[in-house]
Amino acid sequence: MTVSKEHLRKRIAAAAGREKADIVIKNGTIIDVFNGELLQGDVAIADGVFVGIGAYEGHTVIDAAGKYISPAFIDGHVHIESSMVVPAEFARVLLPHGVTTVITDPHEIANVAGARGIEFMLAASEGLPFDVHVMLPSCVPATSFENAGAVLTQADLDPFLSHPRVLGLAEVMDYPSVMNADEGMLDKLTATMAQNKQIDGHAAGLDVQAINVYRTAQIKTDHECVTVQEAKDRLQRGMYVMLRQGTAAKDLEALLPVVTERNSRRCLFVTDDKHLDELLREGSIDHHVRMVIERGLPAITAIQMASLNAAECFRLYDKGAIAPGFTADFLLLDDLEQVAIHQVYKNGRLVAEQGRVVEDMLPPQSAEVAAKAEELTGSVRIKPLTKDRFAIPVRNEKAHVIGIIPNKIVTEHLVIEVPTVQGEFVPSVERDLLKMAVIERHHLTGNVGLGIVKGLGLQKGAIASTVAHDSHNLIVAGTNDDDMLFAVKTIESMQGGLVVVEDGKVLAALALPIAGLMSNQKAEVVCQGLDELEHALRTVGAPATFQLFLTLSFLALPVIPSLKLTDQGLFDVQQFTLLSGV
Amino acid sequence: MTVSKEHLRKRIAAAAGREKADIVIKNGTIIDVFNGELLQGDVAIADGVFVGIGAYEGHTVIDAAGKYISPAFIDGHVHIESSMVVPAEFARVLLPHGVTTVITDPHEIANVAGARGIEFMLAASEGLPFDVHVMLPSCVPATSFENAGAVLTQADLDPFLSHPRVLGLAEVMDYPSVMNADEGMLDKLTATMAQNKQIDGHAAGLDVQAINVYRTAQIKTDHECVTVQEAKDRLQRGMYVMLRQGTAAKDLEALLPVVTERNSRRCLFVTDDKHLDELLREGSIDHHVRMVIERGLPAITAIQMASLNAAECFRLYDKGAIAPGFTADFLLLDDLEQVAIHQVYKNGRLVAEQGRVVEDMLPPQSAEVAAKAEELTGSVRIKPLTKDRFAIPVRNEKAHVIGIIPNKIVTEHLVIEVPTVQGEFVPSVERDLLKMAVIERHHLTGNVGLGIVKGLGLQKGAIASTVAHDSHNLIVAGTNDDDMLFAVKTIESMQGGLVVVEDGKVLAALALPIAGLMSNQKAEVVCQGLDELEHALRTVGAPATFQLFLTLSFLALPVIPSLKLTDQGLFDVQQFTLLSGV
Repeated sequence: MTVSKEHLRKRIAAAAGREKADIVIKNGTIIDVFNGELLQGDVAIADGVFVGIGAYEGHTVIDAAGKYISPAFIDGHVHIESSMVVPAEFARVLLPHGVTTVITDPHEIANVAGARGIEFMLAASEGLPFDVHVMLPSCVPATSFENAGAVLTQADLDPFLSHPRVLGLAEVMDYPSVMNADEGMLDKLTATMAQNKQIDGHAAGLDVQAINVYRTAQIKTDHECVTVQEAKDRLQRGMYVMLRQGTAAKDLEALLPVVTERNSRRCLFVTDDKHLDELLREGSIDHHVRMVIERGLPAITAIQMASLNAAECFRLYDKGAIAPGFTADFLLLDDLEQVAIHQVYKNGRLVAEQGRVVEDMLPPQSAEVAAKAEELTGSVRIKPLTKDRFAIPVRNEKAHVIGIIPNKIVTEHLVIEVPTVQGEFVPSVERDLLKMAVIERHHLTGNVGLGIVKGLGLQKGAIASTVAHDSHNLIVAGTNDDDMLFAVKTIESMQGGLVVVEDGKVLAALALPIAGLMSNQKAEVVCQGLDELEHALRTVGAPATFQLFLTLSFLALPVIPSLKLTDQGLFDVQQFTLLSGV
Repeated sequence: MTVSKEHLRKRIAAAAGREKADIVIKNGTIIDVFNGELLQGDVAIADGVFVGIGAYEGHTVIDAAGKYISPAFIDGHVHIESSMVVPAEFARVLLPHGVTTVITDPHEIANVAGARGIEFMLAASEGLPFDVHVMLPSCVPATSFENAGAVLTQADLDPFLSHPRVLGLAEVMDYPSVMNADEGMLDKLTATMAQNKQIDGHAAGLDVQAINVYRTAQIKTDHECVTVQEAKDRLQRGMYVMLRQGTAAKDLEALLPVVTERNSRRCLFVTDDKHLDELLREGSIDHHVRMVIERGLPAITAIQMASLNAAECFRLYDKGAIAPGFTADFLLLDDLEQVAIHQVYKNGRLVAEQGRVVEDMLPPQSAEVAAKAEELTGSVRIKPLTKDRFAIPVRNEKAHVIGIIPNKIVTEHLVIEVPTVQGEFVPSVERDLLKMAVIERHHLTGNVGLGIVKGLGLQKGAIASTVAHDSHNLIVAGTNDDDMLFAVKTIESMQGGLVVVEDGKVLAALALPIAGLMSNQKAEVVCQGLDELEHALRTVGAPATFQLFLTLSFLALPVIPSLKLTDQGLFDVQQFTLLSGV
């Protein structure tokens, strides 16, 4: 924490009781994350920081009778773009849930718009009563088997590395590039280390030897472990374990048994990707805390994980505790075990109360940010397409088919007989075999990757989206070519988003014109749009039992097994190779 | 940790098993400080760092059958000068005890030689297989009531602030200057913060409000707390608590009950001031670990405190654990509870075995360091003195007398009748009332502060020392003026040190010509000198029950109650004022 002498003088005067503090909280019960206990005493705040626990008087006195004073929560790893709203709106959604600091990886927008995407996220999160820290995307593109909107080398990341809100290098996903000590990856790792910043990891399925390699490369976190043994392996080797509970990935319950009184200091909570409706409905890190307390973790240990441990992990030395010298980011809780949040304070100022943000505390979007957002529209650039581009020749007796597993992001690689007419695949609603395409939409290459998918459940029409991890090309799936083409054209006219069409009519559409990933609208409007899409999915026969757009968004991700579709065609993840057709 | 690509490549190759590691330790039991458990597995080391726990082959294989692999120990706060040997020799003494990293405050030498003293300590600890980190002395001089050899403002500290081994600002002792937000202190605090470095505290006797003030000033540690409640107050307010066990101060046993499974992460071990003979006899941080295990603390918690916790406190991210990515500073222990150290490794190289350092690992003193040491000799600069300068007029019926409390650094303020002849004090061996003087020895001011002391126990002769906290003027006490003068002249001719004289003969003398604080000799030689001084003390009648030179060294310290002697005369600590005579 850098402080001017003038500010330090003011703080000391309040700490010493020479002057009244700005705020004093009386009669509350302090959650002491250092001793893991509850503590009584006045809490004094001056100049946005805590200056004392003891006996104080203040210009403003808060009577916290019966309430707990907790450090505010920190999300150690999140992609804001997955909420589909811009950072200021994301803040508006999260603050009432007690989260005042997030560590983000803007790789979604970086995959579309490169460095301009990172610039936007930094500019759009400036001056908020909500700390958005950024880790620089390490793997753009995610693989060489797809075409993203950009390629980011260390030279592209360099200008950002010294930004005060940039804490290091984001989740390193490309294990082979680390293991093989590829030049480009070494550049990123060593440049980050040279700035004394840190490196996150994405260590999905990595065994202990691979974790050893990651740790040797100074990669210090993982949010992808899903079993207690995996988490233990990582803890033993010096990683912080991020217990993830998001929308697609819900690992918290399975991982919780790894947490003990002795190792909890190395564990923290993250959401990773969490959708807007879930955020609004159940919350963010507050939800983690509630869940683990319900499952028997001591409340204060849970609060530590949500605050101090994340702060220590990311070297945010002035965050994560109710104690003098720390930033006054805190919560007043009506109930500890329920994490019933009465009020949320950031830098000693009230920002949310009883589930609602204090609107005045969020500044209006600046002209600069609005302009940057505008520059990120028009990101759907597709070479003019005709229906015949969707023709899928079937050359063999059996075809490679992507088999959806409900609510999983892994798929099966099926090799089965499919209906054809004149040697070309014809979708069959009865057999739930539909057509899918991934259309390159960044560079007008004209690439269209085609595949057959089983298990989507659509009976009519087509759906399309520009949210398709990680390259965010345009993914479309449907029962007939006309509707697929219409869905694509609707997406184009919206400049990105999600759509459900049937018989040449738009049933529901959510525009995400900022890079094809985010809306500049309020959360409630976006949420409404998501609801309408859900209703439309019911209309076209998709079962309510699984999240179709979520599933769709992972069908183009070539790093998750087993068979996926990229703009260059079907990709066999196990063999790590493109197929030459279906 | 900054790494070149070439080095990182090598480490990764070893971690991945593509190349043999430099060293592999097999069949040992790893002390996992992250989970607080024991762990099995090969430990691979390459390029001086751990690269993996698992299954490895190495160019060198260490069979650690039956041994524990522990992180090496860290002393979080120590004054090397108190050992009376130079840093390289201090390393030689400490390495066999498993301590490979120390965080030092060179305020002793800075009080004598200012910035040149700090430069010497940095230069003299360069290139050792022993990490000496430095906190910049914050309080030179310690008070305005004495004359030290130097005054250090922030302008004097600035050139050191960006040194890679400088971690911040050393123990802030001057509470009033913080509380009153004095300009000079604010300069030091804010300059340190601006460099993202940290601030240690010396919070002796401070109540919770004062701790609040300290913490508001970002002071994050204290080693002076002596009770469980004091330690708790500090932990609650966000300080790290340093449990101290040195020579004068032995607080570990009393403090230990404050440590719990939940708060141990905020606790670490320090020696502060520990004398050479004690270091050689019982050790350093290894002794802390043994002591607390004996008293019931779980062994791994003790090891964590001695390693990981200290590393985290000082942001030494690559230290304190046996895990890939961490520096290979480690111990092989024959016995965990006894902390029986078989071998000590620094950066993966053997530096000590069975209580002996590996001599080849310690480089010879460079010409540069020898020259700097030479420049720090000749530090005893006294205006020529005659016997009559020791005359103490006694003007009142009773005189102010310093009352020694055996083995305490606090003294009593006695006001008693003393023997006089013609209005001047005459020492009385029968009543154990002796004469004492503190002679300014830095700037030839000619100042001689005089006082009467009860309880030293000398029957004959005189003793003198240039180790006198904090200003390190020349302190002399004795039964007669002739011997006192002779002691002073002997010290002058030695260029500083300790001496026992009787009847105009030197009974024993230890030269400390580097700033009057350190010898450039080997530890064994200095220890021999200390033994000879002890024998000489017996000869002149001082009881063996307490450490006389140690006691003498605190009699000039005006910040510890109740009555002390400075070069400007008697100092009443409670009233915080100089007296005008005895």
